[in-house]
Amino acid sequence: MLHIYTGNGKGKTTASLGLVTRFLGHQKKVCVIQFMKKNVEYGEITFFETIPNIDIIQFGTPDFVDKKQPKQIDIDEAVKGFQKAKEVILSKKYDLVILDELNVALDFELVSLEEVLPFIKEHKDELELVITGRYAPEELIEIADLVTEMKEIKHYLANGISACEGTEY
Amino acid sequence: MLHIYTGNGKGKTTASLGLVTRFLGHQKKVCVIQFMKKNVEYGEITFFETIPNIDIIQFGTPDFVDKKQPKQIDIDEAVKGFQKAKEVILSKKYDLVILDELNVALDFELVSLEEVLPFIKEHKDELELVITGRYAPEELIEIADLVTEMKEIKHYLANGISACEGTEY
Repeated sequence: MLHIYTGNGKGKTTASLGLVTRFLGHQKKVCVIQFMKKNVEYGEITFFETIPNIDIIQFGTPDFVDKKQPKQIDIDEAVKGFQKAKEVILSKKYDLVILDELNVALDFELVSLEEVLPFIKEHKDELELVITGRYAPEELIEIADLVTEMKEIKHYLANGISACEGTEY
Repeated sequence: MLHIYTGNGKGKTTASLGLVTRFLGHQKKVCVIQFMKKNVEYGEITFFETIPNIDIIQFGTPDFVDKKQPKQIDIDEAVKGFQKAKEVILSKKYDLVILDELNVALDFELVSLEEVLPFIKEHKDELELVITGRYAPEELIEIADLVTEMKEIKHYLANGISACEGTEY
């Protein structure tokens, strides 16, 4: 089953993390692969580190990725990330696999839809698969079982307040 | 700071639970008060039971609430729930308080906006406060710092597939 959380609002990654707690509560196994992220100070990373039955693997660098000119390392990391995603899904060891921000990696063309789409399509019914991030491509939405758009109605960051520990990371 | 997760799509409660993991990872204290729910078999309940620094309290019955004719117990439970919410917020013991499905309890008129609104307005800046549920009242949206609408784009339940363990509860 493929779920997509997309849109410009908050709550995409956190909704997938909430789903993680549900699955862990049912004694299921979870793997989270995060694209375009490398920051062990995220609260969720620190939290889940001590929890059994979940693996979180980050691919990316701590730096901002320039959409117009991504660095080679950004591409390499995203490609490695999807390679890992394939291994993890094919291993059949996990009940829930989250590909966090894969939509953005696709939009930035760090990984190609031509590679991602057929693989997801072939394997999505073997587990619960969640893909998050803005700009979900139409072709992925097409094959998804559930799509939620997180729509920003109001956001304090628009008023110049800076990111808060716990809330934003 | 008041966050609202509303809309007809999935991910409202789970987004708040994901936020919980972030706060716990930063060694902060969390209280989740769930309205119109009484079901210890939810995966998240089982999961967080064993975790320190979080209290989850449910108010409601396991039964469906009829919006046109709510039972007295539904009203009593929701009123008790908001009473507890007030205590918890006033105690200043928690960094994050989630009032899960309070929007629905308001929409069903189990608790009154006249009671809820002034209290929230007065205390929302003393902590991180999250209110979830469909049908967030305009007056709450007005005073919120952040509002995300979870919008259903596509849902398999619309195709007659029944709720899945882990995904739905």
